Amino acid sequence: METRDHNDPQEGPMSSSGRRATVEDNHLLIKAVQTEDVDRVQQLLEGGANVNFQEEEGGWTPLHNAVQMSREDIVELLLRYDADPVLRKKNGATPFIVAAIAGNVKLLELFLSKGADVNECDFYGFTAFMEAAVYGNVEALKFLYERGANVNLRRKTKEDQERLRKGGATALMDAAKEGHVEVLKILLDEMGADVNACDNMGRNALIHALLSSHNWDVEAITHLLLDHGADVNVRGERGKTPLILAVEKKHFGLVKRLLEQEHIEINDTDSDGKTALLLAVELKLKDIADLLCERGASTDCGDLVMIARRNYDRSLVKLLLSYGAKEHFHPPAEDWKPQSSHWGAALKDLHRMYRPMIGKLKFFIDEKYKIADTSEGGIYLGLYEKQEVAVKTFCEGSPRARQEVSCLQSSRENSHLVTFYGSESHRGHLFVCVTLCEQTLEAYLEVHRGEDVENEEDEFARNVLSSLFKAVQELHLSCAYTHQDLQPQNILIDSKNAVHLADFDKSIKWTGDPQEVKRDLEINADVMKKMNEFYKKSGNFYQNTVGDLLKFIRNLGEHIDEEKHKKMKLKIGDPSRYFQKTFPDLVIYVYTKLQNTEYRKHFPQTHSSNKPQCDGAGGTSRLASPGC
Amino acid sequence: METRDHNDPQEGPMSSSGRRATVEDNHLLIKAVQTEDVDRVQQLLEGGANVNFQEEEGGWTPLHNAVQMSREDIVELLLRYDADPVLRKKNGATPFIVAAIAGNVKLLELFLSKGADVNECDFYGFTAFMEAAVYGNVEALKFLYERGANVNLRRKTKEDQERLRKGGATALMDAAKEGHVEVLKILLDEMGADVNACDNMGRNALIHALLSSHNWDVEAITHLLLDHGADVNVRGERGKTPLILAVEKKHFGLVKRLLEQEHIEINDTDSDGKTALLLAVELKLKDIADLLCERGASTDCGDLVMIARRNYDRSLVKLLLSYGAKEHFHPPAEDWKPQSSHWGAALKDLHRMYRPMIGKLKFFIDEKYKIADTSEGGIYLGLYEKQEVAVKTFCEGSPRARQEVSCLQSSRENSHLVTFYGSESHRGHLFVCVTLCEQTLEAYLEVHRGEDVENEEDEFARNVLSSLFKAVQELHLSCAYTHQDLQPQNILIDSKNAVHLADFDKSIKWTGDPQEVKRDLEINADVMKKMNEFYKKSGNFYQNTVGDLLKFIRNLGEHIDEEKHKKMKLKIGDPSRYFQKTFPDLVIYVYTKLQNTEYRKHFPQTHSSNKPQCDGAGGTSRLASPGC
Repeated sequence: METRDHNDPQEGPMSSSGRRATVEDNHLLIKAVQTEDVDRVQQLLEGGANVNFQEEEGGWTPLHNAVQMSREDIVELLLRYDADPVLRKKNGATPFIVAAIAGNVKLLELFLSKGADVNECDFYGFTAFMEAAVYGNVEALKFLYERGANVNLRRKTKEDQERLRKGGATALMDAAKEGHVEVLKILLDEMGADVNACDNMGRNALIHALLSSHNWDVEAITHLLLDHGADVNVRGERGKTPLILAVEKKHFGLVKRLLEQEHIEINDTDSDGKTALLLAVELKLKDIADLLCERGASTDCGDLVMIARRNYDRSLVKLLLSYGAKEHFHPPAEDWKPQSSHWGAALKDLHRMYRPMIGKLKFFIDEKYKIADTSEGGIYLGLYEKQEVAVKTFCEGSPRARQEVSCLQSSRENSHLVTFYGSESHRGHLFVCVTLCEQTLEAYLEVHRGEDVENEEDEFARNVLSSLFKAVQELHLSCAYTHQDLQPQNILIDSKNAVHLADFDKSIKWTGDPQEVKRDLEINADVMKKMNEFYKKSGNFYQNTVGDLLKFIRNLGEHIDEEKHKKMKLKIGDPSRYFQKTFPDLVIYVYTKLQNTEYRKHFPQTHSSNKPQCDGAGGTSRLASPGC
Repeated sequence: METRDHNDPQEGPMSSSGRRATVEDNHLLIKAVQTEDVDRVQQLLEGGANVNFQEEEGGWTPLHNAVQMSREDIVELLLRYDADPVLRKKNGATPFIVAAIAGNVKLLELFLSKGADVNECDFYGFTAFMEAAVYGNVEALKFLYERGANVNLRRKTKEDQERLRKGGATALMDAAKEGHVEVLKILLDEMGADVNACDNMGRNALIHALLSSHNWDVEAITHLLLDHGADVNVRGERGKTPLILAVEKKHFGLVKRLLEQEHIEINDTDSDGKTALLLAVELKLKDIADLLCERGASTDCGDLVMIARRNYDRSLVKLLLSYGAKEHFHPPAEDWKPQSSHWGAALKDLHRMYRPMIGKLKFFIDEKYKIADTSEGGIYLGLYEKQEVAVKTFCEGSPRARQEVSCLQSSRENSHLVTFYGSESHRGHLFVCVTLCEQTLEAYLEVHRGEDVENEEDEFARNVLSSLFKAVQELHLSCAYTHQDLQPQNILIDSKNAVHLADFDKSIKWTGDPQEVKRDLEINADVMKKMNEFYKKSGNFYQNTVGDLLKFIRNLGEHIDEEKHKKMKLKIGDPSRYFQKTFPDLVIYVYTKLQNTEYRKHFPQTHSSNKPQCDGAGGTSRLASPGC
């Protein structure tokens, strides 16, 4: 047997023409085999290309490719140039096993003569015999059987795969899963395949057949397996029995055939506790429900009548009642308690009511559960994986949807933004689920505007500013996004008074251009005009620079109490409160302008829990150092 | 017309027997109607039950229920007792509209005579005519048409639903979607339904038919619509054309029929950029691929040959090559850069290679991508929604899987734990995706053990302790879980040196019993034995109390340099390092013991960014106040 050296130098030997073959020649050799260009193959081999070269991803040699293409002539040519006949691909498959996939009996025979073992397997436990069953290659299957292949060998896979309960499947299961009736028949009738062998998850061939997406042959295959005594009370993933799988396939014939089995357990439930009858009623399958009831299925398996009523199926309601189904007029009181106090009542209703699930999401587009309107629908209360969330609706594929999801995905680790729970696509819509907060900063300020508790409010404002600083800084630096829509409606407060930034559907990938951040500024236009009028007198308009912004703030503070600005004061109220309301934009602006200057030290650093520190920055310190 | 008062007092009037009807009587009235118990209905009405009572969830009255059950006698009885014939359910449906669902022409006629408008609709825009089409009620459909129903009315839904582009569908689309061939025929042939009306998402009846899960009639319905001139170049969600949808249904007949249409755009792509041919090749549909090629589909639409090769389908490879498909031997270089430096090379390979997606997850159970072994498989590199993650494998339904997911779900907002990205179920397995970190604390300590940078390491240790404190505190207090498996392998360090707690598959819901937390302790048994030996001399064993624990630490520090403890010192090394290595358990232990005592103030508070402050707590301060 030749040496298997995966570390062969890739540079080939000197060719007869004196030119040293290159790695490129090795790739060209594989390409020539794939395009079945025999002359080119010969030429490259003569030129010294490495006949045992393995491409990087899958470890395919020229020989594996020639066998896959079923080209016996190229195989022979490669072997003449000392191709290793038992070299393995990265998944462990040998040329012999690949020949079974191709279904080429001559090649199978050839490799047996070159040292292949009829029961050799790849690293996942697949033998040539199994591959012949997977690909429905009857002649190859028969040949391998004659040469002593083990029909009932169970796949022995890698250790970590076995801990996941992978492996253990047989050729019979492969044929059943792939829908090869002819192969199945031969395995059962002529080769003594064990109809009730189970894989490491306890599934027999019947389960494999019913789990398959190849629907065209499922009836023939099921009949064959049942005729040969397949156990009908095994279970597939999620605890589903063959009967339950047949109902889920909406296949009357299969259900009928299974119910003819002597030992069928008609009332078995899956791991969600659902029986075949309950599933038939949920899926609106009246004929199947009728059949199940007739064969004695228990009607005490869920709120069958209520489900049928909900579907406006009067005849099914009557049928179920005639078989003794009970109506549950008062569903049992539930002890589920929402975490949100603000949305608690509506969440309890949502939790209790029936709604069809959209993936992992339960929600209802209805006024009662609406948090806010948006340009593409609204934000609604929802339960995602049974946890309370805010659900933002979008038209699938809209630019806003893309921006929102893309920004949320990039910033999952940013603890100052709302947490992204997940999204669901459904019939042209996208539903994005994030942290459910109690209220917006806008609503909070509205309520607390008139309160006198200056200190508390200051502490709260400080908390808001600090969180916002960190949120925006992480957004810019870690995630490279700019928000573009910073305003009190988009700053949320949770039940622990923690602050979260939300609404990223206008966010953009930050190119580094400060103008993009500047666009977040939105001081009230009227106020700006008035202040401009005042400033005009002193000879200048306010310019769009941070210096003028700060001057504006200082002037507003200094002149607000003058008689002529009475009307403006009415609009603004206390200037500090006014800036508290508009600070998000102001602060971001200042932050951006200052972050690359000596003032940088005043800002919180990423992943630091230090608060920004005060220094004597004079009139600007309130804005520049919000933590002081 | 009678008054519609949704706020009718629910208590009924005094009955002839002098007893006042209760809310319970109202519920009993609805139940009596649902079970079609006419005598009981009569009795309850005589007893004063409120005939216009609406149950809370859907707003159903006894009348709506009687109509749904198609019981004309009960309807008449209720109307005699002044049931409101035009009262709406919560979704806006009137008894007239419900009569169309039931398909009862007599009741439709009755309600028209009682003031119903033939085109009245519920709050989502559904008319009686549309409901007759949805439920396939041919007689009702014909009756409503004769009475002037608008055949081509488009549903006008609520404003926020319209922003989501819901609404706009017609009765024809309903019949096509629900698979009612007879209704469709009548609508097109006799009632002048517009075959190319589109809903607010631009989908015509053909798209609705092909999107439907009712497969049995899809061929007949498609033929009918095409015969009536349906546009074949419209698009459904994700940009899918009728041709693409037919390929996805694996329906040769439909594809063939669509290709006979004069104006079909055979090379149109969906929003993922995939053509019908590419999808056919991906889905291994050789016959359909052949047909598409024969009708002139472009083969320049993706790496068709490579996909066919990957599926070992030599005949499809040959077919595609014969139609001019090119092979892409060198996939374009990609500029994707992984964030992790530690896993960067493997992530790049994973990103580049082909893997079938499992929901939103791309990964490969293979040594090359393995991070660690676990009892149910392992932890592997993965890309979830294209972001790098760690994927932990489980057998679906195993207790560990439940605990891991349940704890991660409950603690999504806890920023000191690994972030939960999402999970995917696949063929009996569960794949849980979380933050990908660079290494475990164990590995970090292993590497840095011998370094001399005392100060840096101290700062790092302080950071670990502080994060761990917060993580466990939030886990206990906010999420009510105990970890039960705190050890350096389960504490992870990300690329920014931030610390995350991971591995919750042994976690349990905390009942409040301190013993549950105590179990996390695992000081090295040998060391414990030695120290016990020493302590024994002074007359006591160490007891399982925090006091003795701290004594143990103090003693270890005091006696480690003595000659007789040389061997122990070899095992421990520098005591402070030893405790750095084992501190997770120690700290948790101390933390639990102290959290309800006066020492509580030394721990960081939830959502506070304050560091714990030092006071003169003597020998315990290093552990109790890790931030100092």
